[in-house]
Amino acid sequence: MVSEYRLKRRVQFYETDSAGIVHFSWFYRYMEEAEHALWREAGLSILEPVPEVGFPRVSASFDFKSPLRFEDVFELHLTIAEIRAKTIRYKALVTLDDATVATGSLTVACVSRIPGQPMRAIPIPSSIAGRFQSATEDPPSGP
Amino acid sequence: MVSEYRLKRRVQFYETDSAGIVHFSWFYRYMEEAEHALWREAGLSILEPVPEVGFPRVSASFDFKSPLRFEDVFELHLTIAEIRAKTIRYKALVTLDDATVATGSLTVACVSRIPGQPMRAIPIPSSIAGRFQSATEDPPSGP
Amino acid sequence: MVSEYRLKRRVQFYETDSAGIVHFSWFYRYMEEAEHALWREAGLSILEPVPEVGFPRVSASFDFKSPLRFEDVFELHLTIAEIRAKTIRYKALVTLDDATVATGSLTVACVSRIPGQPMRAIPIPSSIAGRFQSATEDPPSGP
Amino acid sequence: MVSEYRLKRRVQFYETDSAGIVHFSWFYRYMEEAEHALWREAGLSILEPVPEVGFPRVSASFDFKSPLRFEDVFELHLTIAEIRAKTIRYKALVTLDDATVATGSLTVACVSRIPGQPMRAIPIPSSIAGRFQSATEDPPSGP
Repeated sequence: MVSEYRLKRRVQFYETDSAGIVHFSWFYRYMEEAEHALWREAGLSILEPVPEVGFPRVSASFDFKSPLRFEDVFELHLTIAEIRAKTIRYKALVTLDDATVATGSLTVACVSRIPGQPMRAIPIPSSIAGRFQSATEDPPSGP
Repeated sequence: MVSEYRLKRRVQFYETDSAGIVHFSWFYRYMEEAEHALWREAGLSILEPVPEVGFPRVSASFDFKSPLRFEDVFELHLTIAEIRAKTIRYKALVTLDDATVATGSLTVACVSRIPGQPMRAIPIPSSIAGRFQSATEDPPSGP
Repeated sequence: MVSEYRLKRRVQFYETDSAGIVHFSWFYRYMEEAEHALWREAGLSILEPVPEVGFPRVSASFDFKSPLRFEDVFELHLTIAEIRAKTIRYKALVTLDDATVATGSLTVACVSRIPGQPMRAIPIPSSIAGRFQSATEDPPSGP
Repeated sequence: MVSEYRLKRRVQFYETDSAGIVHFSWFYRYMEEAEHALWREAGLSILEPVPEVGFPRVSASFDFKSPLRFEDVFELHLTIAEIRAKTIRYKALVTLDDATVATGSLTVACVSRIPGQPMRAIPIPSSIAGRFQSATEDPPSGP
């Protein structure tokens, strides 16, 4: 069961803006990159992990402390803060050489996507939920 | 004095993703588009409204209710929720045909950007602060 | 029958880069924005104008003459250079206050997109082809 | 002296569009990512490798053969096709499991960027030019 992912990532030129720093909209993409890597670690692809099931974003936020610049190599540490019946909440910590760059939060919901029907929140299938655990839970103890 | 802006905007194809909807990272850009249009309404350009002064983003969040799709024409209504000595906080309401798509929040800080020095929070110059007011304040009454 | 479209567009902040100018990748998006607006003028939506038919990009190029900057209001003049049985070729001219910023070219092909089958080039359906004409063709003369 | 770079890269979700494939504008960014990695291999950062010198893009093109999809791991092989006094021309080959996805070309020029003056093409400084060679040139032979 996986509960966290550390994304090591270099800032690309097209991610910077005229103020000479990474445009803030990119942090939400970095956070999602780490989420999808976490799912791959769990043996899953998030786009449609089981047929007609998806995980749209419910909310996402960032607090920005200091900027990133072209070619900086930063880390985004994503942890699962909470898994509930129909949602997963992640936390993100972005650092550059041990200094905090930003902290973020992302909540996604499990929905059924049946063509021709509106999306509807459903419980996360156990084949998915069983691969993740909250980073704050105690790991399962041995016998 | 300006306190709000209504951005009418069509979804572009490159803003959509493989799930067939606008990628959530775009909402933060839409919100910023509206902010910059609000500043233009106030006769200002946000990049460097007075020399060596800038307005980096301190925090930004969105709650997503329903998706936007290619060619949808939506509205983002940005309002100034609060102006403090060194920060401005905006609220955003995104609607499509009167249905709520998303609600957001954005806080920016006033900083001095002197080359070779770290950015430092400073009071918003009165030539800038004097052009904005909170959408919830009473308009100044006549004599 | 439509053969051209003039897109008037303001540069957004997130389109600029650390060199202080619009990142070159945006010109290809601007060109596509104009193409989709041209299709709307023709009463069509390009994503799936008739069921299971799409128009993927075959080639796209730009020559860059001078930069665009934040808040510049430029024009992209898109013209249909050629319509063939299975492809459409557009030309783009980007100008800022009558100075040439860039010139581009875009070729798209008509394909069938049947789920589970590879994409295959097909003739442009007449319900689509009949709405466009090359900008260099003589307009149909009266009786 | 370096003359080529092989970028191995996974498609991110935000790079895909409603047609379920990577939006074509991303290929130009992938090509630039490889260029900047090539410059790092040569011990240089492209943004301002020597003070007041920059390398804006002069032209860029791609021919698209087959699509990339979410989570595909592709390779972009960038080679220096030609170095002239004031320009560098690269070629790009994008492959997925040995199948050709796209072929591209990028030309950049060396310019002086002195604040308050227009950009002006200048010869590539020898401290830069001396680190690159065309992929098609014979390597320098020994004595």
